Amino acid sequence: MGAGGSGDDERLARVALGRVIEPGDGTALRVFEGLGVVEIWERLRRKETGTERWGPRVDAAQPERDLERGAAAGARFVIPGDDEWPEQLDVLDEAGRVSRRAGAPFGLWVRGAGLLQAAVERSVAVVGARACSAYGEHVAGELASGLAESGYAVVSGGAYGIDAAAHRGVLAADGVTVAVLACGVDVSYPRSNSALFSRIVERGLVVSELPPGCSPTKLRFLSRNRLIAAGSLGTVVIEAAVRSGALNSAGWAEQCGRPVLAVPGPITSRMSAGTHVLVRERDAVLVTNVAEIIEAVSPLGSGLTPYPHSPTTPFDELSHELRRVLDAVPVNHPVPATRIAVTAGLDLPTTQAALQALAALSLTHRSPTGWHLPPPT
Amino acid sequence: MGAGGSGDDERLARVALGRVIEPGDGTALRVFEGLGVVEIWERLRRKETGTERWGPRVDAAQPERDLERGAAAGARFVIPGDDEWPEQLDVLDEAGRVSRRAGAPFGLWVRGAGLLQAAVERSVAVVGARACSAYGEHVAGELASGLAESGYAVVSGGAYGIDAAAHRGVLAADGVTVAVLACGVDVSYPRSNSALFSRIVERGLVVSELPPGCSPTKLRFLSRNRLIAAGSLGTVVIEAAVRSGALNSAGWAEQCGRPVLAVPGPITSRMSAGTHVLVRERDAVLVTNVAEIIEAVSPLGSGLTPYPHSPTTPFDELSHELRRVLDAVPVNHPVPATRIAVTAGLDLPTTQAALQALAALSLTHRSPTGWHLPPPT
Repeated sequence: MGAGGSGDDERLARVALGRVIEPGDGTALRVFEGLGVVEIWERLRRKETGTERWGPRVDAAQPERDLERGAAAGARFVIPGDDEWPEQLDVLDEAGRVSRRAGAPFGLWVRGAGLLQAAVERSVAVVGARACSAYGEHVAGELASGLAESGYAVVSGGAYGIDAAAHRGVLAADGVTVAVLACGVDVSYPRSNSALFSRIVERGLVVSELPPGCSPTKLRFLSRNRLIAAGSLGTVVIEAAVRSGALNSAGWAEQCGRPVLAVPGPITSRMSAGTHVLVRERDAVLVTNVAEIIEAVSPLGSGLTPYPHSPTTPFDELSHELRRVLDAVPVNHPVPATRIAVTAGLDLPTTQAALQALAALSLTHRSPTGWHLPPPT
Repeated sequence: MGAGGSGDDERLARVALGRVIEPGDGTALRVFEGLGVVEIWERLRRKETGTERWGPRVDAAQPERDLERGAAAGARFVIPGDDEWPEQLDVLDEAGRVSRRAGAPFGLWVRGAGLLQAAVERSVAVVGARACSAYGEHVAGELASGLAESGYAVVSGGAYGIDAAAHRGVLAADGVTVAVLACGVDVSYPRSNSALFSRIVERGLVVSELPPGCSPTKLRFLSRNRLIAAGSLGTVVIEAAVRSGALNSAGWAEQCGRPVLAVPGPITSRMSAGTHVLVRERDAVLVTNVAEIIEAVSPLGSGLTPYPHSPTTPFDELSHELRRVLDAVPVNHPVPATRIAVTAGLDLPTTQAALQALAALSLTHRSPTGWHLPPPT
């Protein structure tokens, strides 16, 4: 739905529509297709034919009151065209791209010091199970800290489990984290995360498309996930059961053309089953550390991680023949070169030359009765 | 190298060549290219120019004695053309396919009751780290047991750690397991696995291309890995450090055109780093259970595993509208439909119809003062 109208009219209309039209309301997208937000709000207020569905909420809507209530809670209402509007959310309005239940939000309620666009333009979503394991919680915290230290903001959902661990990991690294809620930004859900939300607001942002006072519902969690996916460069799923909200987030990321990254875990853990399905069935990129995440969310060819080689050993540098001779040299009791030649399966001159070469590298040792390995240093 | 010669001549020549020419000796493959085994052995015995390299071992070779020694240890020497020769090893001789250090073995020393070809024609290799974790050991045992129960033999290397756990898992399921050693079949290496080898021989097989009495070397482990990869339908890597023999096995499997399957694990475990590299960098198939392994080693389109769905809930079957109304119904304190309509963001008639429909499914409950969820059963 386009802008239409300007300034305060448009802002008030967007506040009202955010109160009246439920996120993911496909009927609204269809009925009001092509209309500006001021026009939509007018039609709803005039109770035009075809808008009965929204009647009860229209009667209850008080956009000016919502703005006051938001301000009292330290929240501002950010709309398209504002400096801090994250334009990457426009992908949600691209026809044919995302499901008809999507749609960009009418506006976003934002609490916190930073500017939303600046926070999310270089951000990664880290999501996962509420009922995560100790492993998942540890990994979420570590990866989120590492992303923060590498200059990435971390977007998550403010839930128990993986979400909270990710937010905390960022806070521990003095980074920026963004919690996108499925309720009003003045509502602490889950209640026991309220101290966490207060800390997030100090350096980061708490965001929602739902007006102040709204409670979360199952459908609101699912709609909220589209904002996390569209608002970040890629979505990392840490732990997820086979059916879970985290996989719903991954689905939104796919639709938005953002990479889906999956962290593996023990195959004995039900909580890692979902991330393994993402790799097996849905082409998610398996990631095991921060560098691999950054590579996956960076433009093609930049941010590449080195192939994880361990340091090479002197053994690696030897020719096949030298390795065969070295393999044939005993640890303790010296043996003559003739016997080493038989063991190595090489002629005597070749064997002797190899023994000399290995001695020069301090890999063999010659004693009066023959050759052996040097004592360990 | 072709057969050439027949019957006892060829068998003796192959025994002798197995003693004289080290597995992976690229020079031998080059010098003797196109010659039959009897002819090669003749040239070596006559000390022809260009064969000096193998002189010391030729002098020491006693093929008849090796056969006696093998027989005394309960081992037979199986060569191409024998009924129990596993023809899938021929892939190791395909020009341009595998590295020039490969080559099919001259013959295989075999201990055990069954026929080698019958044991390996429906087999999966299960390999991994010696210094595995408790997780890896558990998973190796479980997957190997499951493969045995599904009628697959399990091929592995008889080493500590993953290999031993895989062999034991098969034995626990009364299945067939094949240990391919990097030393003589009469040599117990590692020594503490000797009881395991005795048990393997009772129902399965212990196999090596190296003649009786031979000790293992680093290079022999690497060459042995090609037999494990070529002899099975696919190679499952359970745990592996980034530099490890298990990744060498995976490399051989790739060259032989056999699928490489990798079991994920915690990203916090160094022992799972190698399997994650296989998935990320080398297109290994991530597998988490026996069914997925069987799917990957079965001909295309057979042995498919179902997508791992959890059972659906009544909630899944509801329309979007019914879900919104259900979300808006309070748990305990009944509220009137008018208030549910506002919460759900729908008009009153739609809301009332939805509440009736949900009541018919026993998902809502009507009391004198309004609607609420039914008490938990």
